[in-house]
Amino acid sequence: MFAIRNFSLLCRRSAVSTWRSKSQSAGQRLDISGIYPPIATPFTHSEDVDYQRLDENIKKYGNIPFRGLVVQGSNGEYPYLTPEERVEVVKRVRQALPKDKMVMAGSGCESTRGTIQMSQRMADAGADCVLVVTPCFYRGRMDSHALINHYMQVADSSSVPVVLYSVPANTGLDLPVDAIIQLSHHPNIVGLKDSGGDITRIALIVHKSSSQDFQVLAGSAGFLMAAYSVGAVGGVCALANVLGQQVCELAQLCVSGHWDEARKLQCRLIEPNTAVTRQYGVPALKQAMEWFGYHGGVCRSPLQPLSKADLDQLRAKFSSNGWL
Amino acid sequence: MFAIRNFSLLCRRSAVSTWRSKSQSAGQRLDISGIYPPIATPFTHSEDVDYQRLDENIKKYGNIPFRGLVVQGSNGEYPYLTPEERVEVVKRVRQALPKDKMVMAGSGCESTRGTIQMSQRMADAGADCVLVVTPCFYRGRMDSHALINHYMQVADSSSVPVVLYSVPANTGLDLPVDAIIQLSHHPNIVGLKDSGGDITRIALIVHKSSSQDFQVLAGSAGFLMAAYSVGAVGGVCALANVLGQQVCELAQLCVSGHWDEARKLQCRLIEPNTAVTRQYGVPALKQAMEWFGYHGGVCRSPLQPLSKADLDQLRAKFSSNGWL
Amino acid sequence: MFAIRNFSLLCRRSAVSTWRSKSQSAGQRLDISGIYPPIATPFTHSEDVDYQRLDENIKKYGNIPFRGLVVQGSNGEYPYLTPEERVEVVKRVRQALPKDKMVMAGSGCESTRGTIQMSQRMADAGADCVLVVTPCFYRGRMDSHALINHYMQVADSSSVPVVLYSVPANTGLDLPVDAIIQLSHHPNIVGLKDSGGDITRIALIVHKSSSQDFQVLAGSAGFLMAAYSVGAVGGVCALANVLGQQVCELAQLCVSGHWDEARKLQCRLIEPNTAVTRQYGVPALKQAMEWFGYHGGVCRSPLQPLSKADLDQLRAKFSSNGWL
Amino acid sequence: MFAIRNFSLLCRRSAVSTWRSKSQSAGQRLDISGIYPPIATPFTHSEDVDYQRLDENIKKYGNIPFRGLVVQGSNGEYPYLTPEERVEVVKRVRQALPKDKMVMAGSGCESTRGTIQMSQRMADAGADCVLVVTPCFYRGRMDSHALINHYMQVADSSSVPVVLYSVPANTGLDLPVDAIIQLSHHPNIVGLKDSGGDITRIALIVHKSSSQDFQVLAGSAGFLMAAYSVGAVGGVCALANVLGQQVCELAQLCVSGHWDEARKLQCRLIEPNTAVTRQYGVPALKQAMEWFGYHGGVCRSPLQPLSKADLDQLRAKFSSNGWL
Repeated sequence: MFAIRNFSLLCRRSAVSTWRSKSQSAGQRLDISGIYPPIATPFTHSEDVDYQRLDENIKKYGNIPFRGLVVQGSNGEYPYLTPEERVEVVKRVRQALPKDKMVMAGSGCESTRGTIQMSQRMADAGADCVLVVTPCFYRGRMDSHALINHYMQVADSSSVPVVLYSVPANTGLDLPVDAIIQLSHHPNIVGLKDSGGDITRIALIVHKSSSQDFQVLAGSAGFLMAAYSVGAVGGVCALANVLGQQVCELAQLCVSGHWDEARKLQCRLIEPNTAVTRQYGVPALKQAMEWFGYHGGVCRSPLQPLSKADLDQLRAKFSSNGWL
Repeated sequence: MFAIRNFSLLCRRSAVSTWRSKSQSAGQRLDISGIYPPIATPFTHSEDVDYQRLDENIKKYGNIPFRGLVVQGSNGEYPYLTPEERVEVVKRVRQALPKDKMVMAGSGCESTRGTIQMSQRMADAGADCVLVVTPCFYRGRMDSHALINHYMQVADSSSVPVVLYSVPANTGLDLPVDAIIQLSHHPNIVGLKDSGGDITRIALIVHKSSSQDFQVLAGSAGFLMAAYSVGAVGGVCALANVLGQQVCELAQLCVSGHWDEARKLQCRLIEPNTAVTRQYGVPALKQAMEWFGYHGGVCRSPLQPLSKADLDQLRAKFSSNGWL
Repeated sequence: MFAIRNFSLLCRRSAVSTWRSKSQSAGQRLDISGIYPPIATPFTHSEDVDYQRLDENIKKYGNIPFRGLVVQGSNGEYPYLTPEERVEVVKRVRQALPKDKMVMAGSGCESTRGTIQMSQRMADAGADCVLVVTPCFYRGRMDSHALINHYMQVADSSSVPVVLYSVPANTGLDLPVDAIIQLSHHPNIVGLKDSGGDITRIALIVHKSSSQDFQVLAGSAGFLMAAYSVGAVGGVCALANVLGQQVCELAQLCVSGHWDEARKLQCRLIEPNTAVTRQYGVPALKQAMEWFGYHGGVCRSPLQPLSKADLDQLRAKFSSNGWL
Repeated sequence: MFAIRNFSLLCRRSAVSTWRSKSQSAGQRLDISGIYPPIATPFTHSEDVDYQRLDENIKKYGNIPFRGLVVQGSNGEYPYLTPEERVEVVKRVRQALPKDKMVMAGSGCESTRGTIQMSQRMADAGADCVLVVTPCFYRGRMDSHALINHYMQVADSSSVPVVLYSVPANTGLDLPVDAIIQLSHHPNIVGLKDSGGDITRIALIVHKSSSQDFQVLAGSAGFLMAAYSVGAVGGVCALANVLGQQVCELAQLCVSGHWDEARKLQCRLIEPNTAVTRQYGVPALKQAMEWFGYHGGVCRSPLQPLSKADLDQLRAKFSSNGWL
């Protein structure tokens, strides 16, 4: 109700709503289904962004049947980049990536005004849509009312479609279901990346937003098959930075209804996936990228390299499942 | 390793291992696949166990294609029953239930010796297997080592098969995956009821215990379909006390591979399920039972009846999904 | 308001309210100020209660200026005892303890009716007052309304005064401040043992219950001095099982306003205290008791003995602070 | 060990360690004892920083016996400011504030390099010391090792002293005690603001860092007296934005050993303090500032104004304690 009214208000105010012209021809929403790696940001040993290595990674990813790339999701170390770096990375990725692949750019900032500005700068740099993480520093005050208000303002002003992003492991905050359902009515909000992994919640969101053609992406390869089973249409999977072909194959098996084969592949991906996400984090993801022919390299401080013992554990998670 | 050795030790000690004779003829494990309602315990207005109403509920459940009943899961208010009442309820259920339906009896106590005794008393009262919740009061000390030791002792001594039970919402404790995998080697531990709902975890457990013919049951109707998709073989679902036929139908659709129909049914069950579990708890489950022709009635204090506002919300969760 | 009314109602119903005659002569509440060790329960190697060693510990504690003993607080492994054992231990302690020392007996059960019965049995066995832990299994439903109702029923029926007991580390539940304040009006509820350690909360409870002559006991030696500084009148301190004289000395320094000396002593007690509570739990407490001349011994399973490494750490926490 | 060595290394590298010349003449650390309000940032109705109203607030604060002001603690909405705004606010505060009052500037960023830069810019803008919050986005990787490394780099490079800042309510992360103790050896790390409120932890930190002349500040007025009782030397208290004179009076009573009077005043401050922090957050703080003659005004979005019901509650917390 609130969403619709607010949105109408905006339409009346601006004769031509910018996002409508770009993202909503003939009332159709941007199709975001498919698999996306949330790419890592390579750094030089002095911790500057290594744009050349970034280019080389992107070129390789261009050969994998991804729907596109997520630039500056949590795995991109975006909280460690300056605003200028964030925009520049998006621009470089857009240039290096084949035109038929989508660039979904993480534009979330803590403040609404910061998010609006960053979304616009990323759209100008070539992003096809923006992925907006929940603001979280004042999480005690980030109730549905505040979050709906935030996302409505961002979606109203963005010239490209908006994808909601809930990642409680990093933010300590789950975007509430009722807020998501209300936001799903906004024509410029096309979907959600849900990294929490609560499959009951994901099924409920799919169910309650089905009439709005709202698209849900699994935020991790660990529950990708289960998410497809309840109606998700794709995934943003850190593991796809390393085992991109395999994650795409899993998605294809799910979409085509080959559930028994899917289950076997899914199970072999869980441990490597947990290892490069929850367990050892971005340093592990970057290390594994090196093993599989990509540029990973160091993280920016305060993220530290893995210890020798952790490295061994990490390798074992891949080798025991037949990937190394 | 530890499991096997300990177990062998036991076998050498007792010439005839009791459970082997009963539950393990020809090396096969008891098949626990299928749907179970974890039944509620009806009380009179003075809060005594109402055995007559219990009988009447059981008779009705006998006509639904359940695999069996769970007696004294969390929904049975078992922490509010005396040891004598716990055993007597199991006995009555066994008498009232058709012979082809299984009685899975919750025998968990905080101490190992208490659990061993209760398991034996329940087996004697006719339980086909026992469901053993994680001890949790000293949760800071309940690591894998302590929990493995606990379950090994219980399984070694029990004359009927043991099902592990992890229900973090009530216990504040998740039975660790590594402990589950190690315990899955014990021939008298046949499966796990997992009520946490972390589908990645459930898939991993299925995967890592697959060589042991270990059976995983979803602990809630909210993620039943997703659990089947990753290899679970059934569910213990509070909602089956109310919508038993429908939960069985959902299971059947999953088992037979009718995923699209399953998805539609699953989605309509999520909100009623959440309402009678996490959201409003046992008082809501008992109220909903009344609406659907069963005896629910009051809970023992300190559990309180729902407020009028909560009752209305509860009803809306059923009616908005077409069940009332 | 609710408390008063409910309580009056009871008085009208029963001509002579039992607790009034015993605990409320001349309108005065039982004075519970001072230090109490929440005693451990010694077991034989076959895990039976070792009543002889219990007696010997009690005799030693009789020579320390404690106000009394808490029997079956969390450190007494009460969830591992049968109802009969719980009562018998209280009886033995009462017999072995000098008459001028108080026996505060932990009578909490999950159900209200169970708690009422156990409180009566413990009073009959000689307890001077009962310590009633919050029921917690259905913690999602244990709001102020349910908890107030529970404690009102228990206090109405108990022939000895009731002390509230909030221990979130074990129960996952903090007795809400508003519930405590309302319950403080009940003439048979004389105080609170707060083990959470939130000093702001403790100060607020003291402040808001000051007109009711309600007594707050710190639930741990770690924040004993700070609790005294904001108005607490004593403590139930696991560490007092080991360093009883020192904990009593700290209390005396606080009561007499020797804050600078108190601070020095307090600081040396923090690490040993944390080690025998949060960090290593009851097995560590029992081990440390052995070092200081008491009978500690084994815990009941599933509690496990400390590893060698943990034992060394435990000892270091005492020796580095000059106690060993 | 690590701290000392790393630090020496730095000294050998740079002939004159910049911070030494400024903050460490004659081996003495900067004295940070006393009370600081963590000031709010006033905004215009279009959400721009309102520098004029900021000036007016600062002038008023200049008449209260504060030790100084914290600029851009959590209450300053610093995550919503651009880097330029953060620096400019510090500059303005320094200009408006009497010279004998200290400016402690919050310079924490997620990355180490960002924090180093921001610390330098704030020092250049006139900050007397910097308050560095724990980086937290990748909290799963922020162990002692990573955090020590982060703070060592920041302290090594900063031209003004560094104060550690642990605020788990916002960051989901408690700076570990062992890391604090190790960091307390660094000559350019002079103290800690601890907002968690765990008084046992605060006492332990004071105790274990006492030989380093390390200064602990309570991060909230709710436990200010208790913190003084265990050895803290001051406080950074949101409530001091509103009731500055009273918070300073409480500190004075503690320092001078008037504990009974202190207790009475402390207790009356708890509820208003909780209301403007944990309970209703920065919007409540800014509202209360208006009631007491300061400029509070709106927050930046996504923070929302209080509802009418919350406003009434907030006012009641002040009036029922005699402040309004």
